[in-house]
Amino acid sequence: MKKHSTSLRVRLPALVLILEVLLLALYAAYVTYEDDANAKLQNNDTNPMDNTLYQNYPFFADIQVMIFLGFGCLLAFFRLYGFSGMVFNFLTATFAIQWAILVQGYFQFNIDGKIHLGVINLINAEFACAVVLISFGAVLGKTSPVQLLVMALLEVPVFAVTEWAVLKYLRINDAGGSILIHIFACYFGLGVTFVLYRPGLNDGHAKENTSYHSDILSVMGTLFLWVFWPSFNSALTLKGDDQHRAVLHTFIGLSSSTLTAFALSAMLNKNGKITMADIQNVTLAGGVTVGASVDMMITPAVAYALGVIGCAACMLGYKYLSPFLAHRFRIQDQCGIHNLHGLTGLISCIAGICAILTASEEVYGPSMYEIFSHRAPMEGDPRLLELQQLIPGLKPGLGRSASEQALYQLAAVISTIVVAALGGLLTGCVLKLPYFASPSDDLCFDDELFFNVPPDYDSPIGLNSQIRSEDSASQVTQRSKVPFIITKVTTSV
Amino acid sequence: MKKHSTSLRVRLPALVLILEVLLLALYAAYVTYEDDANAKLQNNDTNPMDNTLYQNYPFFADIQVMIFLGFGCLLAFFRLYGFSGMVFNFLTATFAIQWAILVQGYFQFNIDGKIHLGVINLINAEFACAVVLISFGAVLGKTSPVQLLVMALLEVPVFAVTEWAVLKYLRINDAGGSILIHIFACYFGLGVTFVLYRPGLNDGHAKENTSYHSDILSVMGTLFLWVFWPSFNSALTLKGDDQHRAVLHTFIGLSSSTLTAFALSAMLNKNGKITMADIQNVTLAGGVTVGASVDMMITPAVAYALGVIGCAACMLGYKYLSPFLAHRFRIQDQCGIHNLHGLTGLISCIAGICAILTASEEVYGPSMYEIFSHRAPMEGDPRLLELQQLIPGLKPGLGRSASEQALYQLAAVISTIVVAALGGLLTGCVLKLPYFASPSDDLCFDDELFFNVPPDYDSPIGLNSQIRSEDSASQVTQRSKVPFIITKVTTSV
Amino acid sequence: MKKHSTSLRVRLPALVLILEVLLLALYAAYVTYEDDANAKLQNNDTNPMDNTLYQNYPFFADIQVMIFLGFGCLLAFFRLYGFSGMVFNFLTATFAIQWAILVQGYFQFNIDGKIHLGVINLINAEFACAVVLISFGAVLGKTSPVQLLVMALLEVPVFAVTEWAVLKYLRINDAGGSILIHIFACYFGLGVTFVLYRPGLNDGHAKENTSYHSDILSVMGTLFLWVFWPSFNSALTLKGDDQHRAVLHTFIGLSSSTLTAFALSAMLNKNGKITMADIQNVTLAGGVTVGASVDMMITPAVAYALGVIGCAACMLGYKYLSPFLAHRFRIQDQCGIHNLHGLTGLISCIAGICAILTASEEVYGPSMYEIFSHRAPMEGDPRLLELQQLIPGLKPGLGRSASEQALYQLAAVISTIVVAALGGLLTGCVLKLPYFASPSDDLCFDDELFFNVPPDYDSPIGLNSQIRSEDSASQVTQRSKVPFIITKVTTSV
Repeated sequence: MKKHSTSLRVRLPALVLILEVLLLALYAAYVTYEDDANAKLQNNDTNPMDNTLYQNYPFFADIQVMIFLGFGCLLAFFRLYGFSGMVFNFLTATFAIQWAILVQGYFQFNIDGKIHLGVINLINAEFACAVVLISFGAVLGKTSPVQLLVMALLEVPVFAVTEWAVLKYLRINDAGGSILIHIFACYFGLGVTFVLYRPGLNDGHAKENTSYHSDILSVMGTLFLWVFWPSFNSALTLKGDDQHRAVLHTFIGLSSSTLTAFALSAMLNKNGKITMADIQNVTLAGGVTVGASVDMMITPAVAYALGVIGCAACMLGYKYLSPFLAHRFRIQDQCGIHNLHGLTGLISCIAGICAILTASEEVYGPSMYEIFSHRAPMEGDPRLLELQQLIPGLKPGLGRSASEQALYQLAAVISTIVVAALGGLLTGCVLKLPYFASPSDDLCFDDELFFNVPPDYDSPIGLNSQIRSEDSASQVTQRSKVPFIITKVTTSV
Repeated sequence: MKKHSTSLRVRLPALVLILEVLLLALYAAYVTYEDDANAKLQNNDTNPMDNTLYQNYPFFADIQVMIFLGFGCLLAFFRLYGFSGMVFNFLTATFAIQWAILVQGYFQFNIDGKIHLGVINLINAEFACAVVLISFGAVLGKTSPVQLLVMALLEVPVFAVTEWAVLKYLRINDAGGSILIHIFACYFGLGVTFVLYRPGLNDGHAKENTSYHSDILSVMGTLFLWVFWPSFNSALTLKGDDQHRAVLHTFIGLSSSTLTAFALSAMLNKNGKITMADIQNVTLAGGVTVGASVDMMITPAVAYALGVIGCAACMLGYKYLSPFLAHRFRIQDQCGIHNLHGLTGLISCIAGICAILTASEEVYGPSMYEIFSHRAPMEGDPRLLELQQLIPGLKPGLGRSASEQALYQLAAVISTIVVAALGGLLTGCVLKLPYFASPSDDLCFDDELFFNVPPDYDSPIGLNSQIRSEDSASQVTQRSKVPFIITKVTTSV
Repeated sequence: MKKHSTSLRVRLPALVLILEVLLLALYAAYVTYEDDANAKLQNNDTNPMDNTLYQNYPFFADIQVMIFLGFGCLLAFFRLYGFSGMVFNFLTATFAIQWAILVQGYFQFNIDGKIHLGVINLINAEFACAVVLISFGAVLGKTSPVQLLVMALLEVPVFAVTEWAVLKYLRINDAGGSILIHIFACYFGLGVTFVLYRPGLNDGHAKENTSYHSDILSVMGTLFLWVFWPSFNSALTLKGDDQHRAVLHTFIGLSSSTLTAFALSAMLNKNGKITMADIQNVTLAGGVTVGASVDMMITPAVAYALGVIGCAACMLGYKYLSPFLAHRFRIQDQCGIHNLHGLTGLISCIAGICAILTASEEVYGPSMYEIFSHRAPMEGDPRLLELQQLIPGLKPGLGRSASEQALYQLAAVISTIVVAALGGLLTGCVLKLPYFASPSDDLCFDDELFFNVPPDYDSPIGLNSQIRSEDSASQVTQRSKVPFIITKVTTSV
């Protein structure tokens, strides 16, 4: 790779300025308040406490913590890349949300040519943002903030169109976003990283390692995600029992997944020790695996089993599939998003399809036609009127059979993968353009490239490690630097 | 102590596998949804927003943060034991909750032989989990993850039976769980640590110290607990004014306790400096002390006084009682849970008994018989009908007098202490079995035993400390290592 | 400055004891429960779920996180002052809230001579506490905990009186507290720091720098504040659409402000790198700038623009105004509160005035008279009856015109600045009294003065920095210490 300037002095402000002018113009032209945030539409019938704010805001607040603190800390796991992990996450997330409000608004919240803004849009936009942040995981350490903004700029519309088309035309069940969020994000990210392939990093990088504090920080990120994941998976379900089940299933799936992750981590380590990277990532697999069926009557035991299965697949993926993809297919998946979001997402889809195929009125009662809304009888069907007496607000559906719905789910998965991968490949090509300040190989995983760093940022760690354990191969370079440093210092006395 | 292998490679996966099969089988056989999470039971009368999810979930989310981030960070205070403190907390908590759902479900949420699962069960299970984590504090640094899982496996049923028996037969007031959670957890933990006594650690351990970052991390844990403690103490009160008071009292008690902790910390330190361990622990004493009377009309001033008294007792306990217990009674209480949970819990019980004895209809109005539900007249008493006109939902009670209720509270305290201590002693004996990978004395407080650690984990701290202050005796070994390290390095140049 | 003893052994306990006796006496004499927390006032008409607890507690919980974790982490950004930043914040906040409950209660929640306490009082008290913590930012690193308690003791009443007088007599719109919280806090803090001027620190201080971990910790604080700021700005608005808008505007303002901060940070740095201090502070500017008009129908685009403008002003303030104030006016504003709270607060006031001047019934409908309650017709005006048919609960106002209201806003800003600055100056004079353990110049920014610190607290950072970049001038002293240390160690081998 040729060396380009990586100074952000002009590039970043120029790009941000353009984006901000664009965003401001579009907000001014198209964004207005949703009814529940519009003073003019309140009247003497309005009960302020019935405002949808109070139904959505607690979930929104939890998701905020996940996006900014959860992802932020989780991505700060590299020893010399903590500033970048946490702060580029902040930058990318902030921009992705602003942008998603507009793009999703155009497709989904568009009434009379205006985007009607409420807290529900913010939740949807944070989901789009989560997509970008997951994809970011594939290229962590190897991209400039300019590249990340461009990636968000391109990924959000591709995602929003896919989401809109799948929901409008294929009409699937995917409450936890396993298909639309996790699978899309994964294959988009893999597409990008495939194009950004760096042969020079195939044998590891001297800075591609963690420190004691960065590992702890990253576990804190995991815990923020773990703790609030039930809010994430349940934020967009139907209110009432559906949302209640989504919370329960997510919690159970995460719990069994965590227990399994500890067991497999110790089992697959040759010294019988626990690996922090597993705790940071694999424990979360269950949250994705329960996603597609999270609001259905799958029983707590099945949620438990899904957590275990998802975790096992994710762990084996980290151990065997990721190295294979890197060496055979030139896919350098930095954080292993294919394991945590791809494999688990696919398992979730299969589980969702099974749940759809086995759903019956015996188990769900008439509210089956609320949860599987596309299976409700069509407008004009006399069965619809019957059902509407049992469930007053029931909307006409498409009269799909269970197996029809299952096929649509399958179609959604396949088309999501295809669109995401293509979008990722194209985005990767754009990101290769020389202007975007891509770091050179030797400055990957290094905060110093884009940040003013304090003098202790590369403190002489590893002094002891010379004497102690020789655990990991990637520390060679770093260790061999140390004597040199000490020499210089003692010499200068 | 003999040296056994401490590899987790077989032990941990084997134990987890057995537990997971057991849990999955029991979930499949016995766990179903509570009515509010059951699609079939929703009908055209159901208002989704009346689902109990919305009453309980915000409190649940707060308690999640306390359990996983609060305890996790707080227990990560050792310099070389941060991974273990935070991550074993994660493992133990996750398992304890899964297990408590079943055991508590069997005793308390059992209808027609099925456990009916809702978010309220998760809250109860996280309380049981808090019990295990508090007990964990007594043996922190000296136990393997296998031992911790076994401890949780045994402690949860003992706790659940005690909880059930006390609530069903003694029928006490204990909204904040001072008796059932804090006192139980404390004496169980002391029982375990008594059996696991390590004479070799009686004069301190070279690694039994903190670092600058671990101290800060631990304070963050304290702050997570502090901030959400009102949710913990009020999660299971009656809704409405009772819960409102519980929030107010907990906040006031914590505030006065925090102020007192700073004053006493500086006063009891010979250099007039503040000790971080006090900030990490003693500030929280007020949250426990207000527990047993947290929903009663004790007045804000009494909550304030309880915070001050609890804090003073806790602080003096750390200063004088803990060393005494360690040397005279061979009770090595690692985190001083007897001070933060035992002494404060006992004070809370006394305060609760006083509040019960002084409660009158003058202060409470007729809703006295809701708060002190066992003082309500019995079925058939004409006074009950009168009261039911004032409070429509009032349930018949046991017609207890104030002093009767106070005696039952006392009986509950004593029986809880006895059962907990016995349970702890027996559990300690089980944990001594050789298979459970107990660390040898010299590898206590050391992450390296069970984790792959990055090379900087034992970085050459304390270089400056040679020149600077000679504060704490426990740093001797660590300091004397440093020149050796440097020699090796400079020699190798 | 003369050297006084800085031991806290007598001073801190003595002060705290006096304060606690005073507080306890006042709580006992004057504080009772508000109606929704009073058991006696519940009757067979009361619906427990209508308790105001459920409207206020979620916002309170979010603000708790901001105060204790957000400010706590943010203020821990100095390399050797992390304990003090986080822990003095804890101490000061805890005391300020206890004290504000009484003082605000006296002025605002006083019924029949009693303070009626509910969660809403706690929210108000945490706002008063935020005022103290912002002012604390001006003198961070240069004050003892005794001085901070005295500052809180004096600042809370001055603030409470100003708040009460402005709300009662000037009757302004200031939902997000830009005038009452941010501007007051800023000018009070500047007043204090002006009196506490230390000429010896004018050329920087050897310890006035960050470390890699303290920078990350501080960003976490920023993220806690960022994530929950919508709760802060909306906690005291009218319920319903007003609160909904406050959430939306705050989120949008923060988002655009964050994006702008990244761009300007790179642009104003001579190496085109990002400066962490900008990320820690300037990203938050938008939250203040939208404050005064946060509940009005300003449109999302204006909220976006306010975020950009506020951020730019704040950034330029840090770059040019702060050094100017320090050198010309002897105002050593440690955290730059004049940029983040003063300048942005003033912009927010201007925006609020513009929003008031342009408000019309066309945009707001009749609920304009709820939001701008002082513009509602006076008692007896026939127009009031008309409006009350459209909005049943509308209270009579003062019949102010838009421009009258704008003038009152202006009067509020000016009088707040004057009172705050005078209060700050007087408080500064009190803080200079010798008894309050003020640190000497060379022990500023140093945890060791007031804390028992672990041996690694001043670990030999900067070894590498000798060889590497020569970024920041303030590291000179610290770097020149390093060889000395190494010499001592190698010599001692």
